Amino acid sequence: MTVVEDRERAALATWSRLVEPVDLAAVHLIDRVGAATALEQLRADPAGLDAWFAPQLRPGADPPSGRWLSRIGSADGERDLDRVRRLGGRFLVPGDPDWPGCLDDLGERRPLGLWLRGPLSPAPRGDRSVALVGARACTDYGRHVTGVLAAGCAREGVAVVSGAAFGIDARAHRAALACGGATVAVLACGVDLVYPRGNADLVAAVRESGVLVSEFPPGTTPARHRFVERNRVIAALSGATVVVEAGWRSGAAITAREAVELGRGMGAVPGPVTSAASAGCHRLLRLGATCVTGTEDLLELLTPIGALPEVPVPAAAAPDRDHDGLDEATVRVLDALAVGRGRGMVELVVAAGLPEARVEACLGVLAVRGLAVPDGGGWRRGGLRERR
Amino acid sequence: MTVVEDRERAALATWSRLVEPVDLAAVHLIDRVGAATALEQLRADPAGLDAWFAPQLRPGADPPSGRWLSRIGSADGERDLDRVRRLGGRFLVPGDPDWPGCLDDLGERRPLGLWLRGPLSPAPRGDRSVALVGARACTDYGRHVTGVLAAGCAREGVAVVSGAAFGIDARAHRAALACGGATVAVLACGVDLVYPRGNADLVAAVRESGVLVSEFPPGTTPARHRFVERNRVIAALSGATVVVEAGWRSGAAITAREAVELGRGMGAVPGPVTSAASAGCHRLLRLGATCVTGTEDLLELLTPIGALPEVPVPAAAAPDRDHDGLDEATVRVLDALAVGRGRGMVELVVAAGLPEARVEACLGVLAVRGLAVPDGGGWRRGGLRERR
Repeated sequence: MTVVEDRERAALATWSRLVEPVDLAAVHLIDRVGAATALEQLRADPAGLDAWFAPQLRPGADPPSGRWLSRIGSADGERDLDRVRRLGGRFLVPGDPDWPGCLDDLGERRPLGLWLRGPLSPAPRGDRSVALVGARACTDYGRHVTGVLAAGCAREGVAVVSGAAFGIDARAHRAALACGGATVAVLACGVDLVYPRGNADLVAAVRESGVLVSEFPPGTTPARHRFVERNRVIAALSGATVVVEAGWRSGAAITAREAVELGRGMGAVPGPVTSAASAGCHRLLRLGATCVTGTEDLLELLTPIGALPEVPVPAAAAPDRDHDGLDEATVRVLDALAVGRGRGMVELVVAAGLPEARVEACLGVLAVRGLAVPDGGGWRRGGLRERR
Repeated sequence: MTVVEDRERAALATWSRLVEPVDLAAVHLIDRVGAATALEQLRADPAGLDAWFAPQLRPGADPPSGRWLSRIGSADGERDLDRVRRLGGRFLVPGDPDWPGCLDDLGERRPLGLWLRGPLSPAPRGDRSVALVGARACTDYGRHVTGVLAAGCAREGVAVVSGAAFGIDARAHRAALACGGATVAVLACGVDLVYPRGNADLVAAVRESGVLVSEFPPGTTPARHRFVERNRVIAALSGATVVVEAGWRSGAAITAREAVELGRGMGAVPGPVTSAASAGCHRLLRLGATCVTGTEDLLELLTPIGALPEVPVPAAAAPDRDHDGLDEATVRVLDALAVGRGRGMVELVVAAGLPEARVEACLGVLAVRGLAVPDGGGWRRGGLRERR
C-alpha cells in the first residue's frame, strides 16, 4: 500500500536519528533531493554540502554537516526500522496513506516521520481530537476537571491527545481509556522507553489500546528541548489545545501557543485566582484563550464558527420566574402589589406609574396567572414562589 | 455656583418622580423644551402633548401623558428637594458643575438627575473608579477576592462603585471603607431608605464617608425594574465593571454588558468551574470579558492601551533556572551531561548531536557557570539546583 520506497523510509529513519528537531537545514535538504540522496551527499561530500548551505546560514552559524556527522556512526535506519517492527510498531512518513495531513500545517517544522506503537492512528478521527495538557504539579481540582473533560471527549468520539507526563496529562489519558475513548500519547523519548517510570502502567495501556507517538527514534532518552519540540506535535495532531491547570511558566502554555499559530483552538480552564496551579490558565485567558468550563465549551472549540453563539441558558440553572414572559408594564404592576394586604387602584396607579386603564389590563394578565388576587376591594400578590 | 435655575431643578425633581427610567419620551420632551415648560404643558394640555408624541410612538404604545399624570398628584419637586436637603443631601442635575460627565455617555438613557447623600462626589476621581459587583449568594472565595480587589483599589486611589446589595456588593463597599478608600453606592430606592435592611450599618457608613446615589426620589421603594435600570448608572459611573462572582442569570452580568456598551472595561474574576457562583463570570469570559486575577489586572482595565502588554513574569513565580540565558546548543550539552558520573567526549557528541568542537565550546560556558565539572577524563553535571 505504501508509496514510499523502502530505501527512502530507511534514510528518513536514519535522518531522524541524526537531527534534533527542528533542523531546518535537514528539512530543506530532504525536501529538495530526498532523504536517501541527502544521506549519500552527507557521507560522500560533507564539505560540498556545507558550501551549498553557506549562503543560507545566519552569520556565525555552524555549517550543518558537523552536527549531522556527530551521530553518523550510531545511525542506522534499517536497524531502527527493524527494531520498532519487532516491538509491533512502525515508522510513518509523509507520503504514507495514513500520514496525518494535519502535521503538514507545521510547514518546515513538521517531523521527518513518526515512530508509532499501538493499534490506533495518530490522528484517529481527523480533527476530532483535543489536546488536554497541563501541569505535572496539578491539584485535585485540576485532576477532577481533566477527568470530566476527557470522559466527555470519549463520549463524543473525540480523541484525547496528551504527553503522558505526571499530573494533568496522565489523568487525561487514563480517563479517556477508562471511558473507552481514543487516546494518543506524544512522547519526548523513543516509543520503546518509558518516561516517567512512574507512568509505566499508563504507557503500557496507551500502547495496548491507543497509540504512542514520537518523532525520536527508538532508544532516544528524553531531554529538555525534546519536551519543548514535542509540544508542537501535540498541538498539530489536535483540533484544539485545552490547558487545564498550569503554573505561570509552563510547557502546556507553549503547546497552547503552538495551537494558536497553527490556527487551532486554544482553550484554558479557569480556576481560583488564589491557586498558583491556575495562574498559567488565567494568563492564557488574558491572551485570548477561550474559557472552557465543560465538554460543551471544548466541542465548540473544535467547530469554529463565524461569531460566538448566544450561550444557551441551561434549564437547570435558570428556573422560570414569576415575571418571565410578562411585558414591562405588567412587571411594574406585579411589583406594585403587596404580599400581605390588598392595595387599591389609586395606590397601584401611583406605585406602578401607569394610567388606571393600563393597570387594570395588567391586573387581568396577572390574575389569569394567579399572580394577582382580589383582596378587600383591591389586589394583593398571589402565587409567590420561593425566591433565590 | 450652579447654572441651573431653581425652577428648572424643582421641575426635574418632579419629573424624577413622574417617570420610571428609562422614559425616552420624557427625556426627549425635557431636552426640547426644558423640565419646567414640559411640566406646564403636561398640566395644561396633556392631549396636545400626546398629539405631539403620536408620530414618534411605536404602533400600539400608550401615549405618555397617561402614565405621567398617574403620579402627578403625589409629585412635588420643591417638597422632595426640601426633604433631601433636611437629610443633608442634594439633587444633582445636568448643568451642575459637579454633574458627572461620564453619565452623559448613556445618551438619552442618562438619569434626569441624581439624588445624593454623603460627602463624596458620585464620580470622585474622574474615571479612576471601578464597579465591583456580583452575586448576593456569594461564596467565601468570592468574598475573599472582593476584599483583595477593593483593598487594592483603595491603595491605588480608585473609588469602588457598587450596589449595596448583600454578598459581593456589600463586601466591596466594606473593604473599601475599611482601607480608607472612596466608595459609591448606587441604590434602587430613595437615598432616605435602607435596602436591604440587613445592610443598615453599611448604608450608614457609606453615607458618612462615601456617597449614596439614586435617580429615584426620596421615599421610592425598590422594585425589580429599578434594580435593572440602576445597573446602567453603576456602569456609567465607573471606568470599568468587574464581576467577582455571579450565577448564570445575574444582575451583575447586566451591569457588565452595560459597561461594554458604554465603551468601559468589562472584567470577570474566574473561579472553579465546579462552582455555580462563578458560572456567570465564566460566561462573561467567553463573551469577551477580561480575566481579572488581582488589582493589577483591574487597573489595566482602567487604562486601555493599544495592545495587551506582555504579561510580566513575577519574580517570585519564576525563579532562575540553570538553563536561563544559555543558547540552544549549550542547553543540549547541559542535558547530555549525567549527574552522578562523567561522560566522555564521544558519548557527549552523540547525546547532544553536535560536532566535537561545538561541544567543547559549550562545556567551557557550562564550566564557567559551575554547571559542568571535569570527572575522570570526561564531564559530569555540576551545581544542580532543586527542581520544581
